[in-house]
Amino acid sequence: MLNLPDPRPEGDTSSPSETADFVLNQTMLRIKDPARSIPFYQHVLGMTLVKEIPFPEMKFTLYFLGYVGPEDDLPEEEEGRLHYAFGQPAMLELTHNWGTEDEAGNVYHNGNDEPQGFGHIGLAVPDVDEACKRFEALGVDFVKRPSEGKMKGLAFIKDPDGYWIEILNPKNSALICGV
Amino acid sequence: MLNLPDPRPEGDTSSPSETADFVLNQTMLRIKDPARSIPFYQHVLGMTLVKEIPFPEMKFTLYFLGYVGPEDDLPEEEEGRLHYAFGQPAMLELTHNWGTEDEAGNVYHNGNDEPQGFGHIGLAVPDVDEACKRFEALGVDFVKRPSEGKMKGLAFIKDPDGYWIEILNPKNSALICGV
Repeated sequence: MLNLPDPRPEGDTSSPSETADFVLNQTMLRIKDPARSIPFYQHVLGMTLVKEIPFPEMKFTLYFLGYVGPEDDLPEEEEGRLHYAFGQPAMLELTHNWGTEDEAGNVYHNGNDEPQGFGHIGLAVPDVDEACKRFEALGVDFVKRPSEGKMKGLAFIKDPDGYWIEILNPKNSALICGV
Repeated sequence: MLNLPDPRPEGDTSSPSETADFVLNQTMLRIKDPARSIPFYQHVLGMTLVKEIPFPEMKFTLYFLGYVGPEDDLPEEEEGRLHYAFGQPAMLELTHNWGTEDEAGNVYHNGNDEPQGFGHIGLAVPDVDEACKRFEALGVDFVKRPSEGKMKGLAFIKDPDGYWIEILNPKNSALICGV
């Protein structure tokens, strides 16, 4: 059990000086088959594959994806993209252990069936209905459409491994939260 | 099965125009007890609690945390912080289902024990050894110290629920990856 000071109130940004340059760089999910996951994250969700890193001795490959705009100056040379992958905030790291693509059925656990833990990643989008119409046309699986359930205006879709992805509009958040 | 185009090569940022303003906003993890998790993420890891959002009807509370610097202009009013929480990249969303703090032992599954799925979140830090010395002094649990295992110079620690947090330095990534 850690012996830590009391929590700071909401909005209090006075973090310890030792953590001043920390960055929440990555969320890692294991995937069964990059041949279906990479096109999903690139084409359906619009991410860029920043760096693919094979580890032949340990028989796995890492795929770093993220939203990269023209203003982000993604380096053209490989080493620059590698530093980018490990340094920028909000990167998605997909791990492919070689061979899982040949197994039958689902290989990985999405954290929402039992035993629970990890819940989802979430995307902020300008228009949830429009985004979801496009997902529907592309044949994406939904956990919850924007019109369903208690929380109107937000949706959950599934990635190829069954991981949940929340689709939300920050402008609706006050409505959703009743603030 | 989705019918998608072939993957775009690494570094190709030509995402569909419909996804131009998408943001990877959040990663959601369920936590047993905010009284131990919030001080951990604030004090040990240096995040700011941006917004706490209770849902009394559904008996859960969301806690949005992230790295907020002076340049990020965190709004002082509550609604502004709510929009910030749902709109910025790289927010951590911790979900507390009321009552789990009274259960014995671990409540949630970290995704690295079987059944596997989610792996970890990862922090980019300026000095892995220095960060880990401080974690050690604070009594944090380690999965792997920087000097252990095949991948020297990076570490994994555990949060209060047992979720893994990678501690890495982007400047070492070329060394780690053998590029």
